[in-house]
Amino acid sequence: MPEPDQPDAHQELAERSVATMWAQDRASQALGIRISDVAPGHATARMHVTAAMVNGHAIGHGGYVFLFADTAFAFACNTYGEATVARAADIAFLAPVHEGDELVATAQERGRSGRSGIYDVTVRRVDGEVVAEFRGHSRGLGRSLVD
Amino acid sequence: MPEPDQPDAHQELAERSVATMWAQDRASQALGIRISDVAPGHATARMHVTAAMVNGHAIGHGGYVFLFADTAFAFACNTYGEATVARAADIAFLAPVHEGDELVATAQERGRSGRSGIYDVTVRRVDGEVVAEFRGHSRGLGRSLVD
Amino acid sequence: MPEPDQPDAHQELAERSVATMWAQDRASQALGIRISDVAPGHATARMHVTAAMVNGHAIGHGGYVFLFADTAFAFACNTYGEATVARAADIAFLAPVHEGDELVATAQERGRSGRSGIYDVTVRRVDGEVVAEFRGHSRGLGRSLVD
Amino acid sequence: MPEPDQPDAHQELAERSVATMWAQDRASQALGIRISDVAPGHATARMHVTAAMVNGHAIGHGGYVFLFADTAFAFACNTYGEATVARAADIAFLAPVHEGDELVATAQERGRSGRSGIYDVTVRRVDGEVVAEFRGHSRGLGRSLVD
Repeated sequence: MPEPDQPDAHQELAERSVATMWAQDRASQALGIRISDVAPGHATARMHVTAAMVNGHAIGHGGYVFLFADTAFAFACNTYGEATVARAADIAFLAPVHEGDELVATAQERGRSGRSGIYDVTVRRVDGEVVAEFRGHSRGLGRSLVD
Repeated sequence: MPEPDQPDAHQELAERSVATMWAQDRASQALGIRISDVAPGHATARMHVTAAMVNGHAIGHGGYVFLFADTAFAFACNTYGEATVARAADIAFLAPVHEGDELVATAQERGRSGRSGIYDVTVRRVDGEVVAEFRGHSRGLGRSLVD
Repeated sequence: MPEPDQPDAHQELAERSVATMWAQDRASQALGIRISDVAPGHATARMHVTAAMVNGHAIGHGGYVFLFADTAFAFACNTYGEATVARAADIAFLAPVHEGDELVATAQERGRSGRSGIYDVTVRRVDGEVVAEFRGHSRGLGRSLVD
Repeated sequence: MPEPDQPDAHQELAERSVATMWAQDRASQALGIRISDVAPGHATARMHVTAAMVNGHAIGHGGYVFLFADTAFAFACNTYGEATVARAADIAFLAPVHEGDELVATAQERGRSGRSGIYDVTVRRVDGEVVAEFRGHSRGLGRSLVD
């Protein structure tokens, strides 16, 4: 683990952790999700709503909006070099999304205590409208994510 | 809407509502989800965890577990003939799932008041182990789902 | 701990655990809460909405409705002889309560896994109307509650 | 309602709304809660954990921590002049509190859309340790809070 006075080492660890995760994350790759703006406790994700994500009301399935927010959360909480999983999460759906929409999810750590963390994710359309607010609760597994 | 003393009519409306939803629900169809045991306020869903659902920790992406539970919830809350969407939901992840696992989600209405409803969904592996508990909050849109 | 084939011993432990908790629980005593129907994973609580619980909208403060549900949850999850605390909880407020209303909270375990448990609490007025649905997540502390 | 280009009017409305609420809020007054730092979408609350708030584990009852956070949320979401109530809320308990602790709750609006709003409340001891994270969902009642 980097020392507290090594900001570059923290950033480097965050980027390496995300790269390790990403290489194995077939789910996020298959959905065309892209990750950017990685920093300790932070990640941004982007995704297009495809025809395969449309539900029985002809709008984007809320489950995919959750999955997308959950992905941004997963990358944000795995920036510290420790393998970390979701323990619980909640989401409020504020506006529908439609096929073709491009979504941006911004995940930001709200606090950590021991092996537990809380992360907030706002999902917006690229035009800026907030479509969902997500909060995730993480738990570290006690093993390193990177070599 | 059926009269309160017509149980068969309620059941028939539930089945017709779900059939209408299902026909348009490309998202659930594409994931290989199957719906069964439909009744007013109730639905059961089944899904296999595929290779495309595996995340960066080599386990099933929690987002797909949510999406699966959310699908069971969506069918359960759309059994009354009124088009109904999710307003919010939360999930607790209790055990990991792996590629090849078959999951069963049982959605049951907990209560309804006006246009709002609360539904509980338990997600189990077919061996019976509970992998997630989900609670969804629904909102009716005030328009009919069926002709 | 009782053996699985000793239902009376489980019930006896549940009642003894609740009695031990209750004796020290100044908060619940001060609010006039009464506990009944104790069984493993289950408890019922009753409380009157008093003038001191009224908020700035002249209705019962939702915080007291939560506190009341949380109390029923606390007794239900402490029926196994292990000191157990709340890790998280959520509540949906479905109808307002007023000064003088008598409330009944029914807490029921939904599932346990290791030291974690999930409990559902429905809060009703004595006339039967549901005023809130609560879900609590518990965590055992690994120490005995009773001698 | 003030015009968008009148920041002083917005601040004045926020303060007047909170004063109107406070005058009737016997629950918050009785608990010795103090409100400060009021601004549109924001409020800070302070409270001491008293002997009457101690539960059966000899720590502060989580229900009072929720009630305290919920109070900060209530004042923050009633700063726009419209009577607004809580629709739902969730809380994660991160550290126990004890008799004599002074708590500070900071409520901040996360977003509003139509009559719905989301507010985040962090509860800290005065020494800075975060003891709980709360998220509240509000709903406007469509009537004015102030004359």
